[in-house]
Amino acid sequence: MEIETFPNPNTERPYVIQHIQEEFTSTCPKTGHPDFGTVVFTYVPSAHCIELKAMKEYLQGFRNEGIFYEAVTNRILDDLVKVTKPQWARVETIWRGRGGIRSVLTIEHCPKGYTGPKAEPFRY
Amino acid sequence: MEIETFPNPNTERPYVIQHIQEEFTSTCPKTGHPDFGTVVFTYVPSAHCIELKAMKEYLQGFRNEGIFYEAVTNRILDDLVKVTKPQWARVETIWRGRGGIRSVLTIEHCPKGYTGPKAEPFRY
Amino acid sequence: MEIETFPNPNTERPYVIQHIQEEFTSTCPKTGHPDFGTVVFTYVPSAHCIELKAMKEYLQGFRNEGIFYEAVTNRILDDLVKVTKPQWARVETIWRGRGGIRSVLTIEHCPKGYTGPKAEPFRY
Amino acid sequence: MEIETFPNPNTERPYVIQHIQEEFTSTCPKTGHPDFGTVVFTYVPSAHCIELKAMKEYLQGFRNEGIFYEAVTNRILDDLVKVTKPQWARVETIWRGRGGIRSVLTIEHCPKGYTGPKAEPFRY
Amino acid sequence: MEIETFPNPNTERPYVIQHIQEEFTSTCPKTGHPDFGTVVFTYVPSAHCIELKAMKEYLQGFRNEGIFYEAVTNRILDDLVKVTKPQWARVETIWRGRGGIRSVLTIEHCPKGYTGPKAEPFRY
Amino acid sequence: MEIETFPNPNTERPYVIQHIQEEFTSTCPKTGHPDFGTVVFTYVPSAHCIELKAMKEYLQGFRNEGIFYEAVTNRILDDLVKVTKPQWARVETIWRGRGGIRSVLTIEHCPKGYTGPKAEPFRY
Amino acid sequence: MEIETFPNPNTERPYVIQHIQEEFTSTCPKTGHPDFGTVVFTYVPSAHCIELKAMKEYLQGFRNEGIFYEAVTNRILDDLVKVTKPQWARVETIWRGRGGIRSVLTIEHCPKGYTGPKAEPFRY
Amino acid sequence: MEIETFPNPNTERPYVIQHIQEEFTSTCPKTGHPDFGTVVFTYVPSAHCIELKAMKEYLQGFRNEGIFYEAVTNRILDDLVKVTKPQWARVETIWRGRGGIRSVLTIEHCPKGYTGPKAEPFRY
Amino acid sequence: MEIETFPNPNTERPYVIQHIQEEFTSTCPKTGHPDFGTVVFTYVPSAHCIELKAMKEYLQGFRNEGIFYEAVTNRILDDLVKVTKPQWARVETIWRGRGGIRSVLTIEHCPKGYTGPKAEPFRY
Amino acid sequence: MEIETFPNPNTERPYVIQHIQEEFTSTCPKTGHPDFGTVVFTYVPSAHCIELKAMKEYLQGFRNEGIFYEAVTNRILDDLVKVTKPQWARVETIWRGRGGIRSVLTIEHCPKGYTGPKAEPFRY
Repeated sequence: MEIETFPNPNTERPYVIQHIQEEFTSTCPKTGHPDFGTVVFTYVPSAHCIELKAMKEYLQGFRNEGIFYEAVTNRILDDLVKVTKPQWARVETIWRGRGGIRSVLTIEHCPKGYTGPKAEPFRY
Repeated sequence: MEIETFPNPNTERPYVIQHIQEEFTSTCPKTGHPDFGTVVFTYVPSAHCIELKAMKEYLQGFRNEGIFYEAVTNRILDDLVKVTKPQWARVETIWRGRGGIRSVLTIEHCPKGYTGPKAEPFRY
Repeated sequence: MEIETFPNPNTERPYVIQHIQEEFTSTCPKTGHPDFGTVVFTYVPSAHCIELKAMKEYLQGFRNEGIFYEAVTNRILDDLVKVTKPQWARVETIWRGRGGIRSVLTIEHCPKGYTGPKAEPFRY
Repeated sequence: MEIETFPNPNTERPYVIQHIQEEFTSTCPKTGHPDFGTVVFTYVPSAHCIELKAMKEYLQGFRNEGIFYEAVTNRILDDLVKVTKPQWARVETIWRGRGGIRSVLTIEHCPKGYTGPKAEPFRY
Repeated sequence: MEIETFPNPNTERPYVIQHIQEEFTSTCPKTGHPDFGTVVFTYVPSAHCIELKAMKEYLQGFRNEGIFYEAVTNRILDDLVKVTKPQWARVETIWRGRGGIRSVLTIEHCPKGYTGPKAEPFRY
Repeated sequence: MEIETFPNPNTERPYVIQHIQEEFTSTCPKTGHPDFGTVVFTYVPSAHCIELKAMKEYLQGFRNEGIFYEAVTNRILDDLVKVTKPQWARVETIWRGRGGIRSVLTIEHCPKGYTGPKAEPFRY
Repeated sequence: MEIETFPNPNTERPYVIQHIQEEFTSTCPKTGHPDFGTVVFTYVPSAHCIELKAMKEYLQGFRNEGIFYEAVTNRILDDLVKVTKPQWARVETIWRGRGGIRSVLTIEHCPKGYTGPKAEPFRY
Repeated sequence: MEIETFPNPNTERPYVIQHIQEEFTSTCPKTGHPDFGTVVFTYVPSAHCIELKAMKEYLQGFRNEGIFYEAVTNRILDDLVKVTKPQWARVETIWRGRGGIRSVLTIEHCPKGYTGPKAEPFRY
Repeated sequence: MEIETFPNPNTERPYVIQHIQEEFTSTCPKTGHPDFGTVVFTYVPSAHCIELKAMKEYLQGFRNEGIFYEAVTNRILDDLVKVTKPQWARVETIWRGRGGIRSVLTIEHCPKGYTGPKAEPFRY
Repeated sequence: MEIETFPNPNTERPYVIQHIQEEFTSTCPKTGHPDFGTVVFTYVPSAHCIELKAMKEYLQGFRNEGIFYEAVTNRILDDLVKVTKPQWARVETIWRGRGGIRSVLTIEHCPKGYTGPKAEPFRY
């Protein structure tokens, strides 16, 4: 997996970047039915920022993959942390629901001892 | 009571799962009239995650049961904690109201010494 | 079926009455799963108006009945027209959805030649 | 009943005036419980316009009166038409509901042959 | 009174222009208290369009004038029609209210025989 | 193509059924990028009503098809009219947008001489 | 004053109950004009929970009482604390306003040393 | 000026296409300050449909042009009608405002005798 | 300057009072153009509460005064603190904007060592 | 770069000023396409406050500049801090999105040891 990045234009102070993709879809590994949701990636960059078109295409890659909410949210965080090596990061997924139940998952990557800025939970 | 679970796909870091069921109904034990509400279950899984279809059917089981707001909210938390044994959990019930009064109940299961992530109150 | 009515306090001019019940539930005859929706009854009374408590209890009677959207909407209109014999009437049902699809049904009872007031569609 | 009016400042062309009182309360004649709602009076004045303070006090007069939705809506229209003798008028009452059912009533006073302006239904 | 206009850039087909000023204030001639509201001027131009800065200053001229809702709405329509000589025009005033009652006034200038475009009522 | 239907439970009076699928996706034939939108199917049934699960699966069939907005909206209407043979029908598609431009398409199937009920445009 | 209570079904862990009455009215002791507002009572029960119908009737008792915002909010808290003896409690009153000014009052009953759960401010 | 089109995939029945660009900017010819607004183009195609990317680039062309609201709205309609030769068309521009006044313009291209479908005004 | 107060009915426990005036206007000292905004005064009373009618008239006194946002917000806080001598206070002003820029100012009066209740920021 | 300031009218206590410009546009350095967003500048002034017209013109200067989200947000904070030398400051940029992804950036200027007031994140 390759996701393009570009150099962080200001590495002197930590700051927060949030990307909100409201057009995410994967499929349920049990039923094969499609799932629809919003993916919010929030991070404090170190040396690299994620390139938006690359992130969009990365997320499109799940379109026909059968994967549970819990697994896909963990994997997106792992993948994006691997390419950006951020000071802090969080993935939130907000799902339109199955069987009348909507779901929201929140996973944080917070290296021990990090005391820099974080973002409030996304208000969906 | 049996509620199906599946293995937590990532037990290395704690994270938050929230399921929102906006189609909950039980009945008032005093008047027999139906109550309508939203049930929000939020938890940090340990070894197991709750299966969504199983949770939906569990909640449907209250449809014709006469039970007060306070009792049903406590029971849902107890039942879901028993099957998932989470690191942390919370049940919120938001009721459409009786006699012009709307009600909201919030019950947390927080084992002593837990210092992991929690979720903000649900914004109904 | 008996639904209580009371005399229309003003039979000199036609006017529109709308009752909105946002807490309606029946069950799907195919899957047995519950359906949740809003029932809107709008009418121009003749000699009788429907009593609200009686209408509420009538609608509660569908709670455990297995019936399709199309059938229940037609039946509510038929039943309420039979007891109120209105100059004009309409039932709208707005359903929370099944399998990601929300539905809205609209059925009008409009005797030939009626030229009196009607109500705009309900804005759900 | 006396409700103060003042001369219409422009009797050359018909125009529409709408007054919206969102703080209306009366009581239910059956149960004695209070009802809460919004009263919207819309009219095309002839020689007189209704004075706002007088209209407010007139509506406050229903505070402790036991009266059904249908009766109070008809009476407000009759009373306000009697003092203003408008070219056209309408009263809409939007009630917060009893037993989970919200209600909306719409009564128009439209003299035969009137072809002047009217207002769209109030969007509550 | 002078309100600047400029030539209508397209006199070949009729079209609708709407200007919405949400920062209008005048004073109540009875109590001296300030009134706050929104003024919406909608018209189909003939040879001239109203200049926005001029219209803004014209409306600011009512700031310390004591004038009733009915009178000010009629006067604004008269004044703006006089300077623009439109094919059709309408003024709507939406007031924040006095004594709990909000008001909305709608006055149309429609020359006999006009069959061109009009605008829907403003949704406040 | 086979889409399951069931007999219309009331063929004596025409009435309106609306199904709203907010989880529709297809792909752009030019760029291959996914499109996301809402599909609204509204119709007045003749002898048959469309079965919801069948309709859902029919719409899921476009998931990986490259097709323009204009073509897919026409095709859905053609397909659904073929299986339900309704008295009247309409398809509306509301797209989340490409390049900052959101789009809405509305196509009606209205047999000559039809004078029965229709539905207002969908308010997205 | 007697307000019915019932035994707290779960005294083992503290939890939060919130009752929202949006139909509250009292009168201004200075002008005699009615005041309208919302009363929110939030508490952590000890041995007793407040019965909803009893609370509704208690609040209706202020209908014709002349009392200032500050006094009525303090009194409701005092009265409800006296009957429920909660671990923690709060009353919020949100008023529709007088003379263009809306008001919100918040009074907390927090016994010294209480460290249990509280609720966030009500979002009106 | 060249704006790419593609063949209308269904010329057998008239239907409505609406494109909403919420990121439009031009400049005021008097002050040089930027104007921001939304451009809504709605039409019933004949032989050709407008290509979205081409329309986007056409609208971007106004970015640094000094032009009044009235002129730009007329010109967009003229330009888009010239390239698409539609059965019916309308341009609506909704401006964020200058000096506290927001503006909305609506211009229709309706060939004499056209009786096909139109779209309701855009609800901004 | 004299602003009427009345005795705090409950000096035994600190509590929060918030008054929201959405109809504030002053003028810009540079251009003379009017400014419109909302003024929120929140405080924890000591011995005195501010009388609402007096506060309303005090705020009306700025109607024709030329004063910057920063200055007027500071002055309102100073004036209201002087007459009420509160345990804690805050003024927030939310302005409709000038030249496309909206502004919000927040000034707190917090005597050293104060540890009583405060209110969350006003959500405009 | 010169951005006009004026003396802080109250340097005795720290307070928060927030300016919200919802009409910001720059261009993407990669594609040349325009970006649209909202810029929120929040600060606690020291000796100087930023003049609003100057700030507006400063932000307009980015209209035709090709610059990434990350770079422009950092630069605005640097520039505004340089001219106002505030006790604390923050820039938030909220972008309408590219390729279906909306972005939000938050950069704080917080001198070491600063313990004065801050503002909550902007709720876009």
